[in-house]
Amino acid sequence: MEISPLQKERLKYQPKLPGMLKNGISDICVREGEATQSVADQEKIRSLFPNTYGKKEITFQKGANTSAPKKQVVGVILSGGQAPGGHNVISGLYDALKATNRENVLLGFKGGPSGLVDDDCVEFDDAFIDAYRNTGGFDIIGSGRTKIETPEQFKAATETAKKHGLTAVVIIGGDDSNTNAAVLAEYFAANHVGVQVIGCPKTIDGDLKNDDIECSFGFDTATKTYSELIGNIERDANSAKKYWHFVKVMGRSASHVALECALETQPNVCLIGEEVAEKKMSLSQIADQIADSVEARSKTEGNFGVVIIPEGIVEFVPEFGTLIREISEMLAGSKTEEFNALPDWAAKKEFIRKGLTAESYKVFDILPEAIQKQLFLERDPHGNVQVSLIESEKLFAELVKNKLDERKKAGTYKGSFKTQFHFFGYEGRCAFPSNFDADYCYSLGYNAFMLIQYGFNGYLSKVSNLSRPADEWVAGGMPITKMMNIERRNGEDKPVIRKALVELDGKPFKYFEAHRAEWAVKTCYTYPGAIQYYGPSDVCDLTTRTLALEKG
Amino acid sequence: MEISPLQKERLKYQPKLPGMLKNGISDICVREGEATQSVADQEKIRSLFPNTYGKKEITFQKGANTSAPKKQVVGVILSGGQAPGGHNVISGLYDALKATNRENVLLGFKGGPSGLVDDDCVEFDDAFIDAYRNTGGFDIIGSGRTKIETPEQFKAATETAKKHGLTAVVIIGGDDSNTNAAVLAEYFAANHVGVQVIGCPKTIDGDLKNDDIECSFGFDTATKTYSELIGNIERDANSAKKYWHFVKVMGRSASHVALECALETQPNVCLIGEEVAEKKMSLSQIADQIADSVEARSKTEGNFGVVIIPEGIVEFVPEFGTLIREISEMLAGSKTEEFNALPDWAAKKEFIRKGLTAESYKVFDILPEAIQKQLFLERDPHGNVQVSLIESEKLFAELVKNKLDERKKAGTYKGSFKTQFHFFGYEGRCAFPSNFDADYCYSLGYNAFMLIQYGFNGYLSKVSNLSRPADEWVAGGMPITKMMNIERRNGEDKPVIRKALVELDGKPFKYFEAHRAEWAVKTCYTYPGAIQYYGPSDVCDLTTRTLALEKG
Repeated sequence: MEISPLQKERLKYQPKLPGMLKNGISDICVREGEATQSVADQEKIRSLFPNTYGKKEITFQKGANTSAPKKQVVGVILSGGQAPGGHNVISGLYDALKATNRENVLLGFKGGPSGLVDDDCVEFDDAFIDAYRNTGGFDIIGSGRTKIETPEQFKAATETAKKHGLTAVVIIGGDDSNTNAAVLAEYFAANHVGVQVIGCPKTIDGDLKNDDIECSFGFDTATKTYSELIGNIERDANSAKKYWHFVKVMGRSASHVALECALETQPNVCLIGEEVAEKKMSLSQIADQIADSVEARSKTEGNFGVVIIPEGIVEFVPEFGTLIREISEMLAGSKTEEFNALPDWAAKKEFIRKGLTAESYKVFDILPEAIQKQLFLERDPHGNVQVSLIESEKLFAELVKNKLDERKKAGTYKGSFKTQFHFFGYEGRCAFPSNFDADYCYSLGYNAFMLIQYGFNGYLSKVSNLSRPADEWVAGGMPITKMMNIERRNGEDKPVIRKALVELDGKPFKYFEAHRAEWAVKTCYTYPGAIQYYGPSDVCDLTTRTLALEKG
Repeated sequence: MEISPLQKERLKYQPKLPGMLKNGISDICVREGEATQSVADQEKIRSLFPNTYGKKEITFQKGANTSAPKKQVVGVILSGGQAPGGHNVISGLYDALKATNRENVLLGFKGGPSGLVDDDCVEFDDAFIDAYRNTGGFDIIGSGRTKIETPEQFKAATETAKKHGLTAVVIIGGDDSNTNAAVLAEYFAANHVGVQVIGCPKTIDGDLKNDDIECSFGFDTATKTYSELIGNIERDANSAKKYWHFVKVMGRSASHVALECALETQPNVCLIGEEVAEKKMSLSQIADQIADSVEARSKTEGNFGVVIIPEGIVEFVPEFGTLIREISEMLAGSKTEEFNALPDWAAKKEFIRKGLTAESYKVFDILPEAIQKQLFLERDPHGNVQVSLIESEKLFAELVKNKLDERKKAGTYKGSFKTQFHFFGYEGRCAFPSNFDADYCYSLGYNAFMLIQYGFNGYLSKVSNLSRPADEWVAGGMPITKMMNIERRNGEDKPVIRKALVELDGKPFKYFEAHRAEWAVKTCYTYPGAIQYYGPSDVCDLTTRTLALEKG
């Protein structure tokens, strides 16, 4: 078996384009919009991006193509974590580039931005692209997390660009990668290298968005895949009536993924990091919230349920953040060695008790021992706690168990509490893109080429009105600097794209908030099932609930 | 959102029936086949089942329905673990029952066989059934694992049957449940209760099959769901080129699930329990086999890969089985208390060293400490090691790491070995049944009613020729005793259905064996993608590779 039957069929799928891009290359013109400002710190951002700041938003529309005829040699880079649809950005880009001029060239730089620095690339042709249409993964050229930031790297990138006669680079990435795209765009402009840079908004986390960028690609497919699995688990829980399933979902910081999965599957509990932070909830309060659901359900529905936990949750719990900071300070410098030399865990715990404030020690003390040890034993090379390794699904299950034991003693709870754990991340980042992501990504790539062809630099490819059918989508571009502000990173002020967190007054959260009390007690599970690429449009062209609520 | 868009559409799906059942109830007659023998221990089985042993296989065919008109009151029971399609067995049964006579009644006994003993049931009507057509889960009436074996239970079941005027019971279950169906059929016959018992072959494990029963239902959907996820992980591994993913798949004993997933996704390594047992492989040999793949790939493809591990693997490793037995003997009686009273792990390890044979201690000694402790600290109420709790995916990863460390020292291996772990089980047991399982289950249920109507007792509903289009499927029945033999259970000889293990000279394993050397070194991943219920028949009506290889 060389390729699977589905892959064979998907290669034939023709992604839908926004209506305004469907008339053929010769019939696409630009409508200019307002000049833009960065989302904050305008003067600082302007001073850092003198050549690319304050540009106008633009929209494409039907009309005579007035772009200058010019042979384009474009490089494309996949940057950061995988997201479904990356291959379609490249195929859309390729198709527009070749439709404009068969002599145009598309180079794929391998293994992320380092491919540009190290000049490691491949030239695409029809057969190459055709083998990757509508498939998941970033395996077409690989991805990487290198940032182009040192003078040597800029110089090397410039040399690569000159060597190949590059006219533009398209960077497909998340907030960090597009921040880097903006920096590179400014560098090329300031140094008259003659290379434009265009970004494409990618991340399954869903945290790269604003009023212009309605969602990042990959979010749709990844959340549909996780929701398929959560729905299956819910149905299992409701059939066996035996377990509480704790499901952790990927998404390093913002809780968009968890929220979308909750809207799709209506679990008993879903934690939202942004709410935990806003309400300054303690671990104990969160555990009580879950235990309330367990207790209520034990009296009516049975001893089963489903809890969704966002991967980044613990960083949003204020007291936990304080604990982490105190631990880092406590073990600074030679203290780590002193700590490591202690003979056993009892001695270490005593060291910890003395080193932490009484408040933080109280937090530390309620943690399960396995998590306590994780905080001290599994640290990164810089001595930092590796928060992402903390098994928060087990942490909360343990804390809930303790709460239930107390309630059992108090006589309010008589149920049983057996748990199962799941973590979904890698399961969804490389799925075949949903029709939505296949269409959206193809459009982003196609549109990226139009931005190049019209000479724009430092822009993000933008396709909006996404809650409507593709024919009504609006294509255009937004200066990347519009999303930027200044943030403190490793002790330095840096211009970065501001991450979009879950808005507690936004419609998706409001919908969740209005329903969760009922979901916590009753069994209101919905079972989305596997992503469908064919069949009734209601099923196979569906977008996310988040997008439908925000823009629908 | 009450139900998901996919569920809404799936409720409308009309499952396909075998051609011979499609002509309408009045046009189905019986063709008798050969009298049957049990697979082994014929005399013993015959003596235990004097009223139901040795019956003929039967096939349905087109012809005048000669069954006696009789009002049927049928009870149906879901028994054991969830498998996709259970609801369709019930809807097929209901449709045939009502098509024969609108006065017929179908009762659903709740929560497994205990529903019959405790008389806990519901009467189905059209609206009830319509809400569950083509959906996953067993939530329509729940399931359970009670066995009906004591005189009191038989008596209670008989009383329930008499109270409702039951004419037949359909038990939907795996090998244990169908063994129980055979016992119940014999009991009802011997005691002239006048209730027939029909079984339906269910289990995602795929180990309930023989020459007649080509596969159990649920295996298709569950393995497709796991293969979707494994394919996505493979694509992620091949994009990021950073991790070795160890994926454990459900399936308590036989390795059919792992093998099918391997055929679907072509991973670098897949362990097959039956081969490990046959070749008497040691843990060290298995670890070396995986390490060989890691080492070879590090030199050509990169430091990434995918390994599939069947849940039941450790029980197939002879030296591990011996170790488990020795541990149980060592801790028999008061020894457990003595062991538990030891002050620390070092003292306990010394106790273990003295208690085990030198050979078993060697095996124990190479285990990671976490697994060593699991063997001693997490025991069931009877003091047995809970083998299913052993995290075999982590065990093998750790053993491989040790092998690679040795090879690094020897200078043959220079790669890096970073791991990710996954366990897929609950993710697939309640998925929406694939078209295959939806059709197969509906046919099994429809056919079960024809067996009832024609007066058969102690039969398994049988639909075969499954690798062909549904129109060519063959429907009939097989006496359950044909699958039985005598096995030792808890110190007693018991008549049970013989589990079908992976046959090492069968075509699925042979295909795997012929290709795995290449898969181990090269990147030959295939990406099956999500189950499709619509679209090209090549994609949405596909059955398993196992079935295609065995029967195609």
